Amino acid sequence: MTSQPSPRPETSGTPTSAAAGTRLDPWLDAYADRTHGMRASEIRALFAVANRPEVVSLAGGMPFLDGLPLDSLAQVAAQVVAQRGLQALQYGSGQGDETLREQILEVMALEGISAHPDDVVVTTGSQQALDLVTRVFINPGDVVVAEAPSYVGALGVFRAYQADVVHVPIDEHGLIPAALEETLTSLAAAGRQTKFLYTVPNFHNPAGVSVSLERRPQIVEIARRHGVLVLEDNPYGLLGFDRDPWPALRSYDEDGVIYLGSFSKTFAPGYRVGWAVAPHAVREKLVLASESAILCPSNASQIAISSYLSTCDWRSQVKSYRELYRERRDAMVGALAEHLPEASWTVPDGGFYTWVRLPEGLDAKDMLPRAVTARVAYVPGTAFYFDGTGRDHMRLSFCYPTPERIREGVRRLASVVSAERELVEMFGTGTTDEPADDVVAPAPDVL
Amino acid sequence: MTSQPSPRPETSGTPTSAAAGTRLDPWLDAYADRTHGMRASEIRALFAVANRPEVVSLAGGMPFLDGLPLDSLAQVAAQVVAQRGLQALQYGSGQGDETLREQILEVMALEGISAHPDDVVVTTGSQQALDLVTRVFINPGDVVVAEAPSYVGALGVFRAYQADVVHVPIDEHGLIPAALEETLTSLAAAGRQTKFLYTVPNFHNPAGVSVSLERRPQIVEIARRHGVLVLEDNPYGLLGFDRDPWPALRSYDEDGVIYLGSFSKTFAPGYRVGWAVAPHAVREKLVLASESAILCPSNASQIAISSYLSTCDWRSQVKSYRELYRERRDAMVGALAEHLPEASWTVPDGGFYTWVRLPEGLDAKDMLPRAVTARVAYVPGTAFYFDGTGRDHMRLSFCYPTPERIREGVRRLASVVSAERELVEMFGTGTTDEPADDVVAPAPDVL
Repeated sequence: MTSQPSPRPETSGTPTSAAAGTRLDPWLDAYADRTHGMRASEIRALFAVANRPEVVSLAGGMPFLDGLPLDSLAQVAAQVVAQRGLQALQYGSGQGDETLREQILEVMALEGISAHPDDVVVTTGSQQALDLVTRVFINPGDVVVAEAPSYVGALGVFRAYQADVVHVPIDEHGLIPAALEETLTSLAAAGRQTKFLYTVPNFHNPAGVSVSLERRPQIVEIARRHGVLVLEDNPYGLLGFDRDPWPALRSYDEDGVIYLGSFSKTFAPGYRVGWAVAPHAVREKLVLASESAILCPSNASQIAISSYLSTCDWRSQVKSYRELYRERRDAMVGALAEHLPEASWTVPDGGFYTWVRLPEGLDAKDMLPRAVTARVAYVPGTAFYFDGTGRDHMRLSFCYPTPERIREGVRRLASVVSAERELVEMFGTGTTDEPADDVVAPAPDVL
Repeated sequence: MTSQPSPRPETSGTPTSAAAGTRLDPWLDAYADRTHGMRASEIRALFAVANRPEVVSLAGGMPFLDGLPLDSLAQVAAQVVAQRGLQALQYGSGQGDETLREQILEVMALEGISAHPDDVVVTTGSQQALDLVTRVFINPGDVVVAEAPSYVGALGVFRAYQADVVHVPIDEHGLIPAALEETLTSLAAAGRQTKFLYTVPNFHNPAGVSVSLERRPQIVEIARRHGVLVLEDNPYGLLGFDRDPWPALRSYDEDGVIYLGSFSKTFAPGYRVGWAVAPHAVREKLVLASESAILCPSNASQIAISSYLSTCDWRSQVKSYRELYRERRDAMVGALAEHLPEASWTVPDGGFYTWVRLPEGLDAKDMLPRAVTARVAYVPGTAFYFDGTGRDHMRLSFCYPTPERIREGVRRLASVVSAERELVEMFGTGTTDEPADDVVAPAPDVL
């Protein structure tokens, strides 16, 4: 997958990639400017290894699907084709199936959103919605303000459209309103146009924190006052472990917030169905952009999701996911406390991730090859910063491995950290100030 | 759907659109430059009417699916979930399912293409492949050379990326090599960078013609000599009425041609599965661009298509489509000869469309509202030219309506043309030289 030759660990199982990387590219001079920034991150080569069964991957963001009622879902899939096949197999509306858009309103009502089906645009996963919003708003050089850290897949899209991302710090209550105010003010003073604020307010990827109830209206108010649109990305909002969902930012301001939702984590990602809810005129642009990008989302996928929502107990499925992931969160933080007490980490009350700060002097990016050799994988913090900082952090996912595997993974990680600390004590800090270069294309293995 | 208030025919059944168009857009100043070119074409409002059952639509490019074996396909869909659900419902590879990519090689072998599964990128319909190729190559102002006329959905993508399209004339044997040579030479002399040649060599949309066997290697050679990539878009290649498929342009030059294929017309569009085959380094860029755009194509869709290919007789299905569409082509050209002898038209030997030149002085775009009132719809020729010319042509589709409906549609069209000619004779030509503005977002209803 690498487009440039790059050092690979000896254990790599992808010989074709290296051979590929050495071929000449006769079309190199023909690429658009934006394309020269597209390259596979070095960590991608490592993840090819991390996906081997002997490695405990705490890296990926794949939901754990083994509990899904496959027999019922198979019946649903059969009925979609047998009873509604001429619609399911045909082209559909660019905006998405109307019945599904109505059902999406029910899902969003759980977070205090009231909208009209006309406001909803169905997309090929919420990643496509991110792409469309960025396409509609971003000229090269425009500013996107985003949490520090931010979802790697969003940063990749912003880079693909040649945006400049300015990070705003967060704490255990999420995005800090005073810091947002200061950033927007100084950007305006510098004459830079901030197009939108990108935020994951619930069970943040990668930080695991949520924006507090008190801060939500404050953030919306600050953005509105500065004339900055809010892009609220909410794949995990229904997956709280100990509480019902909090009101979406969208519930505070219909005209100033684009909300992105997804069935990938609350049901399953394989149908690739997400959505955007946007102010009316913006929604029209998103539909036109989506028609240009894919003509229309899959009717087969949409009708499968729609039938699932109407014939299966999706609320119970969400509840069972919440319990499943809570148990894994507990395994993760328990193991961290037992084996890595010298680190610090967030204790998420929902979602898929915890954000770990390494002991002083350690570099998560440099350490990754040694961790993979020790059969444990994670995503280095550098992936989540536009400026390549974050070497002192790593993201650990607890969504996919079983609690037993999570504990084993953290044990392995602890031994790698321990060996790394000895090296640092002997030879001095391994941390470099050189920015990393991880924010490239997002990929399923580093969701 | 219109983003600007625009005159709508009184018969329009979409009252919300007009209301929508009059709302103020608070985010107008925040859009990217490319977004100001995105608007729904005026003809979109008409197609909302054209989709009513009392209207014979010769406008849309929807395949006719009634002959598909829905019961078998329902079984396939059920097995996909029951037996491979944990894979089908999960995230997948950004490049696409490997088994499906191998099967795609078998399909392409029918057109003389030999490739490796690594060369194939699965996309959300071939529209997404068009979008990705354009994203990877086009800076604002770059030139795309394309047939005159060209597929409206491709022109929409090129416009979305702010390309400039230069048309090259075609005749009954397709793209004219001497004209291509001349165009590329004069573009180079003018110092303009031509990024690629976009062509639909088989059963052209909208013109209904195919590039002759003799011209295929000539076109590839001219492009190569000028250092211009060829983008070969081939949704209809297997749907010849009287002959086996001709060799793809890709079969003459692996390093200089990006080939796009699709299951939308040879099977069904509802799964949204298409693909690109590209030179190696370009393929890597396409995968990275696709990961940024959608993370990965739908596993559920890909595995459904893959299972269809391996368990159903897809070659017989293609054969039955060829017979179905041949019968409809015959109905179309027969009715044109009977009712519209004063026009001229192409007689396609495959695909979905015929391209009709109206009698002198008639304007297909101006006539459309009157045609819709007479309960027949078509796509005016202006949709297929980047410069808004083409008012003297219309595209008629014979793919979806039954032969009886096709004959009725052409009868209605003939009476509209006849009334229009009387007006022209009385009041002079209705044709204006003013360029039309139809090349906007493509949409399922004007495929």
